[in-house]
Parts: sequence; structure tokens; C-alpha cells
Amino acid sequence: MKAVYFDSAATTKMRDEVIDVMTNVMRNEYGNASSTHSFGRSSKVLIEQARKTIAKKLHVSAGEIVFTSGGTEADNLVLQCAIRDLGVKHIITSKIEHHAVLHTVQQLERTCDITVSYVKLDAHGQVDYENLETLLQSHGKTLVSLMHVNNEIGNILDVKRVGNLCQAHNALFHSDAVQSVGHYELNLQDVHIDFLAVSAHKFHGPKGVGFAYIRKNSGLRSLIFGGEQERGIRAGTEAVHNIVGLEKAFTMAYANLNEDREYVLDLKRHFISELRQAFPKVTFNGLSGDLEKSTYTLINVCLPIPPEKALILLFQMDLKGIACSKGSACQSGSNKGSHVLNEVLCEDDLKKPSLRFSFSIFNTKAEIDYVISVLKDFITA
Amino acid sequence: MKAVYFDSAATTKMRDEVIDVMTNVMRNEYGNASSTHSFGRSSKVLIEQARKTIAKKLHVSAGEIVFTSGGTEADNLVLQCAIRDLGVKHIITSKIEHHAVLHTVQQLERTCDITVSYVKLDAHGQVDYENLETLLQSHGKTLVSLMHVNNEIGNILDVKRVGNLCQAHNALFHSDAVQSVGHYELNLQDVHIDFLAVSAHKFHGPKGVGFAYIRKNSGLRSLIFGGEQERGIRAGTEAVHNIVGLEKAFTMAYANLNEDREYVLDLKRHFISELRQAFPKVTFNGLSGDLEKSTYTLINVCLPIPPEKALILLFQMDLKGIACSKGSACQSGSNKGSHVLNEVLCEDDLKKPSLRFSFSIFNTKAEIDYVISVLKDFITA
Ligand SMILES: Cc1ncc(COP(=O)(O)O)c(C=O)c1O
Ligand SMILES: Cc1ncc(COP(=O)(O)O)c(C=O)c1O
Repeated sequence: MKAVYFDSAATTKMRDEVIDVMTNVMRNEYGNASSTHSFGRSSKVLIEQARKTIAKKLHVSAGEIVFTSGGTEADNLVLQCAIRDLGVKHIITSKIEHHAVLHTVQQLERTCDITVSYVKLDAHGQVDYENLETLLQSHGKTLVSLMHVNNEIGNILDVKRVGNLCQAHNALFHSDAVQSVGHYELNLQDVHIDFLAVSAHKFHGPKGVGFAYIRKNSGLRSLIFGGEQERGIRAGTEAVHNIVGLEKAFTMAYANLNEDREYVLDLKRHFISELRQAFPKVTFNGLSGDLEKSTYTLINVCLPIPPEKALILLFQMDLKGIACSKGSACQSGSNKGSHVLNEVLCEDDLKKPSLRFSFSIFNTKAEIDYVISVLKDFITA
Repeated sequence: MKAVYFDSAATTKMRDEVIDVMTNVMRNEYGNASSTHSFGRSSKVLIEQARKTIAKKLHVSAGEIVFTSGGTEADNLVLQCAIRDLGVKHIITSKIEHHAVLHTVQQLERTCDITVSYVKLDAHGQVDYENLETLLQSHGKTLVSLMHVNNEIGNILDVKRVGNLCQAHNALFHSDAVQSVGHYELNLQDVHIDFLAVSAHKFHGPKGVGFAYIRKNSGLRSLIFGGEQERGIRAGTEAVHNIVGLEKAFTMAYANLNEDREYVLDLKRHFISELRQAFPKVTFNGLSGDLEKSTYTLINVCLPIPPEKALILLFQMDLKGIACSKGSACQSGSNKGSHVLNEVLCEDDLKKPSLRFSFSIFNTKAEIDYVISVLKDFITA
């Protein structure tokens, strides 16, 4: 059977070159990076090299990069520790953040003495920057947590604008950049961000590794206690193979960023135009139909499908070997549907089925044409 | 130069078979285990298979195994959440626990309303079981956290006895089993333990993955919030390759456990007798010289070396290509020395240099003989 993978926002196929460096590390570099002997030092060098590579690209210093077990842990590290260590009393976030942010904030709201405000969003899920500014005027030390690129509807936040607003109001700014780093350039000298969360498996790297950017002298301490790894901010023996894999994937992502983006953007353009031609009533959720204001890596499509067919749509796609999703992967199993679409769509559109297709350099136009033909057959059958 | 690795308690060389299954997963199984399509289901099957393999061997149910980013995270998950979720008001532990336990407990003591008691140890670092029983009589919900096998001096705790004591006093029992699982059989139907922490890289598996055993209906919630992975106890996209690697290493560790143990025990026996012959004044720290009461995987040697030479001993070993350590790897960089030896040794012995040599099936007697000859040359030079 054909297998067509259009779920790169959930996770990406790893690059062969990444697998190769990881295999090499697993075979030959088995020292514990905290050991002082040659085996240990050799692992340490690999980790510090990876840290430097990443720091240089983001225009920060190496000490500001803290490796974690992924994006979720990075979000938790920043949010939980900001409350505990930095005297934050007020979190401003949005209802369409990833659960790694949203559930963490809700947990903090239950257990700590803080207030949570949700910034207003327009009908496309766009942050209302004026409302954000109003919220920033409230008293108490504030942390803003707004994602750079939304994983479901692809909206791109104006991080520069938010950073400036935060700076002007003396608030901290955390951005979940899991869907943007590896796909977009980010110069942290130019954009005022205090904390970032990043994950390797979203840009053809390994699962289970990511990093937090934590601005120097932030005062953040650790979420996981133990050894003195990661300058005391993240205890636990470092997963050298994963970190080296992250570095390789990161380097390769930026090595051909422009070409790769053009290629993938062209896929998106093709996908949109084919969908519009096949189903004139199709709409695109959030800003995902806008090539400028959404990431080039995904579309979220609201399909004009009769209700009786809607229920088996995803099942049918799967039968035909097409991997796509309703919302984010980590809520795939649930029946509640996407919290993002629930927030953004009108009643009518919520009744129609929506699908997220997300792409990478490994996709082709032929695959898109196949998806269109499967959708056509299904709808007209 | 010769390279001789005697630091398997810090981390082990990975088995080729483990690397192979991981490489295969990275190449061919890139679905997100939370995705409902075929790519996702296929990853999910691998993870659930790994969970079953582990659960079966420990005689628990699969739902009681929670994958984590390693032993440190597993210790933190249990300790931090036991305080937050289970109403624990009193922790009994020992001063020779790994920092993943000790630093976490100290953090909890600073920030939560709990009391911490340290059980008495004898001159060999053995837990005073009577003192433990006395401490258990204090009021308030109690959690005992005592490691199964000590990573520095190799002492084996009588977990059955401690489990019974805890049960009798209605206390919870967490055991850091990072140095025992993969080296010793553990039947949790037979031993009353509520929580365990385990790490793959201590038995020839990958770094950055481990698991917590969490007894059913314990009430423990999550440390890292986000998606619903690991039945809601540990959010974050699962590192499928690492989990499969953990499973393979685990299976292989137990497949030939008896033979492998005999082989490694024979190395230890040889090491001890050669040391005694070469340096009649040598002593063994903790119980590590006792073949019955300490793990077969390590010795911790106090060497009769003049003070002026002691300082450069580790450096000299490294120059000769020998990897061994002063204490646990994660404190290698520090000058404070081992908190375990500081606790256990008398003043006089603390002045002499101690070295931990830890072994695996990949070591040979020839390597031991090489170490002895290097030590002899160094001491008599
Ligand atoms: C926006 C966003 N944040 C956080 C995460 C979580 O990252 P990880 O899977 O590495 O835990 C994801 C994806 O899963 C994501 O899309
Ligand atoms: C006894 C003990 N507990 C916990 C740990 C930490 O495990 P990990 O390295 O997987 O974080 C180690 C080793 O580092 C250990 O020896």
C-alpha cells in the first residue's frame, strides 16, 4: 500500500545523516560527559560543541542553551521555575497554546498563588496585540507565554512586537518555538525573548531531546534535581547521541533553509490551489491559508463534507495510507477534538471535519495529488 | 594508547544489538506514538511492547511502568510528586543516596512543609535497620527512599526487609534501583516496593531513557505536564528509539544474567586478590570488598599511597588510558570529593586516595592485570 506522510507537525522523518552521526556516537562515544577521564571528556566535547553550534545560530551565548528531554520539558522548566524562582505572579498566555504550555499553566494556577490571563484572539486565532498591552498593565511580575508558530493552524506570532511590549512593561517573555526553530531564522539579539522551548523531532532530528534557551542571569533554577549537569539547571546523565543528533538536524535545517522553504512553500501553494479547485467551498482554519502569515509547513483544512461522512474521514485517509491529523498528535486519542479549533472556529465550521496536513522536504507534489484524488473519491462516492 | 574502561557504574558501553534496533527504529519507525494513523500506531506498538517486556520481568502490570528521560527524572518524579500528591510529610533517606535523590529531597525540604530524617549507617555504610524502624514510628505520612545498590561503594540494601518494615508502618517505599535493575533479579510480587527508578545506560542501553515503576492506584500525578502520554503521568513525545533500546538492553541483560554475573564476579574476585597481593595494606570502602554483600559490578579501593602522589593518581590513570573514578560521575568535576565516602570513611582513610573501578562483561582479566601493573609502577616509582 502507498504510504504518504503528511503529519510532519506531529513529528518528522529523521534525516539519514542524523541517524548516522547518532549511530557513530552510540558505537564509539560511550563516556559519561561528567566523567573526568578521556572517555568522559570526549563526550563532553561533543555536547559543548552542539551547544555552541546552536547558540551561535540563535546569536546567544552557549551557557544560555540548556538541553532537555524535549519541547514539553523545556516548556515545563521555564514555566514551573519562573513561578517558583522569579516571583512571577501573573501569566499571560492564549487558549491556543500547545498543551505543554496550557496544562502546565493550569497546574500552576491550581497549586500556586498566581493569576492567569488569556489574551484575546480574533476569528483567525491572531493575538490581539492591543489586548495584550492592556493585560500587561496589570500589577505584579508578569510572564507572557505565547508560541511562535501554532502547531495546528500555523499562525505566526510577531515575536518582535511581543518582545518589545514585554520589555516596555518589564515582563518576561517565553515563547514555545517548537514549530519554528529549524524552519525559521531567529536572531535573539534582534528579538527580545527571555526563554524559548525547542524540540529536535520537529526538524528531522531524534525524539526525546530538545533545549530551552534561558537568558543569562535569569535566576531560573532546576526542575529536575541531582547532578550538576547543564550548569546545574538540568540534572541527569546527558543523552550524548540525542544531543549530537539534535545538533546535526539543526545544522542541516539551517544549511539549506531558503531552498528547503521554497520547496515546501511550493508544496503548500500547490496543495491549497488543488484543494480550492477540487472543493470550491473549502476553507482554511486560522491563518493557514495565508502564505504570508502562517508557516509554510502546514495547512489546516475545513472540508465541505456531509456530516455522515465526516466521522469516517480520518479513518478513510488512514486506509488509503495517508497520515494526517485532526489536531495535535498528543490529543489524537481524545474525543474532545482540538482545543485550538474549538477556540477559533465558528459553530458551523466546527460541525464540518477539519484536517491538518503538514509537510516537509520529503514530500512531493505527486503525494498531494494522491491526497486530492482520495478526498475527491471519498466525497463524491 | 591502550584504553581500558573501568567506569561502568558511571555509564556502560552500549551493546551492538541495542544500537542496531535503535538505528532500525530511527530509520523506519518515525511515527509519533500519539498519532492515530498507521505510522503512529506502529510506534505505539513498539512502546507498549517494551512496557510489557519490562513489566513481565518485574512481575508487575504494564500500566505501572512509566518511561522517563532517565534515572534522575524517575527519582524526581517519585519524590516531588509523592510530596505534592500523596500527602507525604516525612521522608526517611540516607546520606549516601545518589544526588538525584539527595538533592531532590533537600530541595523539597527547603520548599515544602516536610521533615527529613537520615537513617543511621554503620562504618561500612550499611543501613541500621533498627534505627530505620524507630524512625518509621514517627507520625505523619512517611516515604522511605533508600537505594537498592549504592553506586559508589556497592552496598546492597535488603529491600525485602525494608519493604516489610515500610508495609508494617504504613509507609511508602521508593528505591533508586539504577545500579541494580539489569544486574539483579527483582520480583516485585515478592518484595514490597511502591516506586522504583531505573536507567538504561547502566546496563548497556542508551543514555537519556529510563523508567519509574509506580504502583497501581498510587495517586501519583505528573511532574512534566502537557500531552496525555504515559497515561497522563509523563507528557512529551515518546523517544521511541530510546525506549526500544532500553527494552533490548533490558532483555539482553536478563537473558544471560547468571553467566554474565559469574563472569563479572570472577573479574571482581581477581581484581581484589591481585590488589591484596600487590598492596597488602589496601582496603575496600563500604562493603565493596565483600563478595556477598556488595554488587559484583564494582570495587571501591582505598590505596596506601603517599599524600604527595595521591593528588595526581587519577590523572596518572587517565594518562595510561585507564578510565575509573573517584566517586559518582556527576560530581567528578567538583573538589568536594565524594559525599558517600565523606560519610562512610574515617578521617585517616579519607586522607588516602580512593578509586572506584566498575566492570562489565566487556572487561577482561588482562585489563585488570594492566591496571595493577600501572598502579604498582606509580606507587613504587
Ligand atoms: C508547539 C509545540 N510545543 C511543544 C511540543 C512538545 O514537544 P515534545 O514533543 O518534544 O515534548 C510540541 C509537539 O509535540 C509542539 O508542537
Ligand atoms: C544510583 C543512581 N541513581 C540515579 C542515577 C541517575 O540516572 P541517570 O543518569 O539516568 O539520570 C545514577 C547514575 O547516574 C545512579 O548511579
